Amino acid sequence: MTLDPVLLTLDLIGTFAFALNGALVAIRLANVDIIGVLTLGTVTAVGGGIVRDLMIGDTPPATFSDWRYLAVAALGSMVAFVLGSRLDRLTMPITVLDAAGLSLFAVTGAHKAVEFGLGPVQAIILGAVTGVGGGTIRDMMLRQVPTVLRQELYAIPALAAAALVVLVPSFGWGLFVPVTAALICFTWRMVAVVLDLHAPKPLRAPHHED
Amino acid sequence: MTLDPVLLTLDLIGTFAFALNGALVAIRLANVDIIGVLTLGTVTAVGGGIVRDLMIGDTPPATFSDWRYLAVAALGSMVAFVLGSRLDRLTMPITVLDAAGLSLFAVTGAHKAVEFGLGPVQAIILGAVTGVGGGTIRDMMLRQVPTVLRQELYAIPALAAAALVVLVPSFGWGLFVPVTAALICFTWRMVAVVLDLHAPKPLRAPHHED
Amino acid sequence: MTLDPVLLTLDLIGTFAFALNGALVAIRLANVDIIGVLTLGTVTAVGGGIVRDLMIGDTPPATFSDWRYLAVAALGSMVAFVLGSRLDRLTMPITVLDAAGLSLFAVTGAHKAVEFGLGPVQAIILGAVTGVGGGTIRDMMLRQVPTVLRQELYAIPALAAAALVVLVPSFGWGLFVPVTAALICFTWRMVAVVLDLHAPKPLRAPHHED
Repeated sequence: MTLDPVLLTLDLIGTFAFALNGALVAIRLANVDIIGVLTLGTVTAVGGGIVRDLMIGDTPPATFSDWRYLAVAALGSMVAFVLGSRLDRLTMPITVLDAAGLSLFAVTGAHKAVEFGLGPVQAIILGAVTGVGGGTIRDMMLRQVPTVLRQELYAIPALAAAALVVLVPSFGWGLFVPVTAALICFTWRMVAVVLDLHAPKPLRAPHHED
Repeated sequence: MTLDPVLLTLDLIGTFAFALNGALVAIRLANVDIIGVLTLGTVTAVGGGIVRDLMIGDTPPATFSDWRYLAVAALGSMVAFVLGSRLDRLTMPITVLDAAGLSLFAVTGAHKAVEFGLGPVQAIILGAVTGVGGGTIRDMMLRQVPTVLRQELYAIPALAAAALVVLVPSFGWGLFVPVTAALICFTWRMVAVVLDLHAPKPLRAPHHED
Repeated sequence: MTLDPVLLTLDLIGTFAFALNGALVAIRLANVDIIGVLTLGTVTAVGGGIVRDLMIGDTPPATFSDWRYLAVAALGSMVAFVLGSRLDRLTMPITVLDAAGLSLFAVTGAHKAVEFGLGPVQAIILGAVTGVGGGTIRDMMLRQVPTVLRQELYAIPALAAAALVVLVPSFGWGLFVPVTAALICFTWRMVAVVLDLHAPKPLRAPHHED
């Protein structure tokens, strides 16, 4: 329950990124008002961490035992509310912030799972689950098929970042390994998005494509 | 784990209201039989409380440790099953019962969160989560965008009721504060529904409206 | 936390069946690649057990404390990935595997709930929840109305199997009662599917049908 400052810092940055992301997605829906923006921002921001904490048995989840998570989630949602309506196109900020939240939560989720005694494989998977969790709940609330099912290079970078954190014995170097892992995941994800941008796969193609 | 009788009574009434609500929604789907009605009624009725109990670490949730919750949820679902097919229009009963469940669970959720040691802000938010939880799961199972995202005056009254329960130091007056808080939330919600009835916001407008 | 070998064996077979099922459903979506297949297979396979373990307070869930669950889920998903693209019609294998997972998880869920001290009614319901949980999450991720809401003879056989396990005092006979209960549930479910095959109910009929 004592939070490693490394974990906490990255976790709060991820919370902020996902809150911005979820709130901008809510704004793009156009008919959502401030409460809808706050709700979807907060759910996206704290969903992954709550899933992680329920899985490792750390209740109440950090979201509810440390006021900073909810404060940061609300702040991120409000920033998006103020800025979002002035932006013409929200697609790129939404994607970048989603990749940032994914990367940071994969790292912190894996880190916390190790601290709570889970085995390495389980910690890697739980790291990825933490990364994709908030976005998956966001997508399910908005009736989208979750990104993790649609895009190959969403879960794989998260798994890679989580694996780096779990397998490289390096916290003597402070933030070096987790930040590097998060940057690798983020870069990998963004390259995948940019290269795939004009070749989206159809959701329900009449025939198999493989 | 020892349940305050005030909490328990209001919790069971909320369970009954949400069970009726969820079951009537299932009946309105028209192709759902008795098991579908029972399932959706029960999920709506116990979903918020289960989320609350998982968050505060009270496992097994009250739903599974106190038989009365499941009995009341089943009873409410069956009453709806018998009455529902005789009602021509289900919209108003569904809305009223949803507002009742929302109000009661916001109060009991906040109350229980305080009892389990959460801070005031977290308890208020968790109260609102308890209130909107069952309906949100209901909506997600039925592929609706959850009400909490679509309607401003759904979460706000729940937050207000939870705040009253958390911040007014008054349980020496027995049911007075929680019942008053629930009534305020219920009235507020119903006024909002009635006034908005002919001005629904489009779900995915092509342009921003703010 | 010490796992009964009977429970464990049936639980792992159910995990395998649901992993195959979820992965084949993902393949039928046609635009899902290997990660989508692995994810949906694993979520379907471990979802019910995670819900069960969160409810009874056994955290981390068996999925994360015993490596065999994730290994079996990944194996089942990969087998489906290799075999699935060679099958012309996936409907029948998907249905059979879903019925198998439903049956086995209803039995093991009820069994484990009893071991953790839940009352008989709660254990029966939690058994059924374990059985329908993975498929329900699968359906919600894919924007389907969950089977449990649409088909009468989905939850009822699961409840029956769970009731047999909870109420018949027979573990001196080893696998006899749980395997019989699972077979009854499986047969019942398959008969229901085959007989209803050409009479699907409309999802949102304009008028009531009862």
